Amino acid sequence: MKNFIFQAPTKIIYGSGAEASTGKEVKKHGSKVLLHYGTGSIKSTGLYNKIVDSLKNEKIDFIELGGVRPNPRLGLVYEGIEICRKNKIDFILAVGGGSVIDSAKAIGMGTPYEGDVWDFFTGKAKILQVIPVGVVLTIPAAGSEVSGDSVITNEEGLLKKATGAEIMRPKFSILNPELTYTLSAKQTAIGACDIMAHVFERYFTTVKNVELTDRLAEATLVTVINNLKICLGNLSDYNSRAEIMWCGSVAHNNLLVTGKTGDWASHMIEHELSAIYDIPHGEGLAIIFPAWMKYVYKSNIERFAQFANRVFNINIYFDDLEKAALEGIKALEDFYIQTGLPTKLSQIGIGSERFEEMASKCTEGGPVGQFVKLSYQDVLNIYKLAL
Amino acid sequence: MKNFIFQAPTKIIYGSGAEASTGKEVKKHGSKVLLHYGTGSIKSTGLYNKIVDSLKNEKIDFIELGGVRPNPRLGLVYEGIEICRKNKIDFILAVGGGSVIDSAKAIGMGTPYEGDVWDFFTGKAKILQVIPVGVVLTIPAAGSEVSGDSVITNEEGLLKKATGAEIMRPKFSILNPELTYTLSAKQTAIGACDIMAHVFERYFTTVKNVELTDRLAEATLVTVINNLKICLGNLSDYNSRAEIMWCGSVAHNNLLVTGKTGDWASHMIEHELSAIYDIPHGEGLAIIFPAWMKYVYKSNIERFAQFANRVFNINIYFDDLEKAALEGIKALEDFYIQTGLPTKLSQIGIGSERFEEMASKCTEGGPVGQFVKLSYQDVLNIYKLAL
Repeated sequence: MKNFIFQAPTKIIYGSGAEASTGKEVKKHGSKVLLHYGTGSIKSTGLYNKIVDSLKNEKIDFIELGGVRPNPRLGLVYEGIEICRKNKIDFILAVGGGSVIDSAKAIGMGTPYEGDVWDFFTGKAKILQVIPVGVVLTIPAAGSEVSGDSVITNEEGLLKKATGAEIMRPKFSILNPELTYTLSAKQTAIGACDIMAHVFERYFTTVKNVELTDRLAEATLVTVINNLKICLGNLSDYNSRAEIMWCGSVAHNNLLVTGKTGDWASHMIEHELSAIYDIPHGEGLAIIFPAWMKYVYKSNIERFAQFANRVFNINIYFDDLEKAALEGIKALEDFYIQTGLPTKLSQIGIGSERFEEMASKCTEGGPVGQFVKLSYQDVLNIYKLAL
Repeated sequence: MKNFIFQAPTKIIYGSGAEASTGKEVKKHGSKVLLHYGTGSIKSTGLYNKIVDSLKNEKIDFIELGGVRPNPRLGLVYEGIEICRKNKIDFILAVGGGSVIDSAKAIGMGTPYEGDVWDFFTGKAKILQVIPVGVVLTIPAAGSEVSGDSVITNEEGLLKKATGAEIMRPKFSILNPELTYTLSAKQTAIGACDIMAHVFERYFTTVKNVELTDRLAEATLVTVINNLKICLGNLSDYNSRAEIMWCGSVAHNNLLVTGKTGDWASHMIEHELSAIYDIPHGEGLAIIFPAWMKYVYKSNIERFAQFANRVFNINIYFDDLEKAALEGIKALEDFYIQTGLPTKLSQIGIGSERFEEMASKCTEGGPVGQFVKLSYQDVLNIYKLAL
């Protein structure tokens, strides 16, 4: 086990009707608020009105900025920063999924910074001061509601980059599983796939003696798998929605990496895909992860056998752990297929045309990943395996 | 799943050598510090000198108050409050186990309060303001390093009572598994038993559809069980010490009760024992929990069967879940016996003389517990089962 620092400071307010406390929570942190949201689904579901009423009940002054798209854009972040500066905004309320939250965080870090907010994403500047963010979550997937991270796409050059800081963790996140009933089967599966990917990035590690962290991760994976199956049978099932939503936050508050080193290569490989093709991140991960697993499993067959056994109940023959390892990867692929996810690039109309460009951008800072360090050629091979 | 609020704000600084950062962490929160500790073992192990050096390196002004005993006493808390008021202390550093931390918390809540600090324990007053506490942990057991709770024994009448508040959670807790090498096999087993008890109190619930929380709890129990066995074979084994120590904090930061209602009857039943007989809390729990389980399991045989199967790998015959439930309880008792813990009051020289008095004190506020509500007669029966 490695030394670590762990803290989960975001206040989670969880359950049926939880969004009613939005105004009260906001009031603890700010008086002039930017209400940030997506392309309007919160208006059709009635959530927008509930939030506005809750803010008005507490006499909170707010300005709106909607329009966040999946793979959130730097352009809108600039716009948000302008609004915040002009109106002396002191708190940002993100109502939506990971894209809205990431956009809110970027605005939060960019507003007090004199330079270009993109500097934080290129590593040119360090996040020292932020406008705090609060969240009402509508899509369990990204885990951004508990993390200090933000992923933004720069339209110029289609660069998708991540940055983060502890002080960027949301002050509170309101999680009501009922708010996720309107997600389609496909959106739900994509979200669950993103959640599982966050666990995988932390689970596949070269660090030994991490039993508790391993078992907590396996517990989370098993719960997502069991409940996604139930949920897809009834999209308005509170219990399975509730399990998936809570898994999404537990998967990404860094509890599941305590004592370990995360990998994150698959995320980087996928980011190149969604930056260029604008596909949902979780869909890209359903394609990239099985390919990554097939490419790297030989470097630690025991860990993949453990995964197969503890997560998918694969029977183990101790004289042939590779068999179990491969069965585990197959079980994951089968699960994705069962839940309607693509597992091949060709299924979503992506060919090999830009593989070299993506592999090159992905590794421009050097090899990626920790479990296995992946060079340009490795990343290229993984794209090919995913075809 | 029930609605809940969850937050784990205590900064955990974990690993080999972690205590070196004590001064730096303290400095973020206070300038005039009360250094609070036990009956001197930190001096013989050299930890005391390390802490003092670390504080001096940061030029932090501090005053000492040692002498905390297991089942920490109200008398010393009063003394600490006096010192804090007289010296305008603004931060309390607890170096030790749960007793030292609980004592520090009581001093922290009592200092700014004009009345008697015992008011918080009797429910006469609410904790609104505190002097913050930081921790260097030496005994993984109580989980007080991450909780907002404090348990204090009032020497007058041997009353052991608990209180708590979110604002009482330590600002930071420094956890170095190496600091636990000096714990004897017995102390280690007692600590592990306390950790497991914290999970049990949250695991045995009447709330349904809490799959993630259940599985996280089971993961924690399995890890404690596996690693206690390893650790007892080599008390200086870093890896098993590390697992147990981290389990102790995960077990008690309230993650494992999210969506559930905790029970806490066994803790209350045990508190009467340790208040009168001054036995280690964890030892009392090794005796009370199996008795409690035997007394209540019939009210939810399925949950006890799940416990048996998932934690102790007991084979399930689905037409006889009671068999599995009973085998699970037996496996727990056997595990305690294996690890050198008593499982009967008679083994530690306690007879039935004061059972009525204890059952009466335990239930003076009405029935205790949630899984099953226990009356005076029930508690008396459990003491008898534990004989």
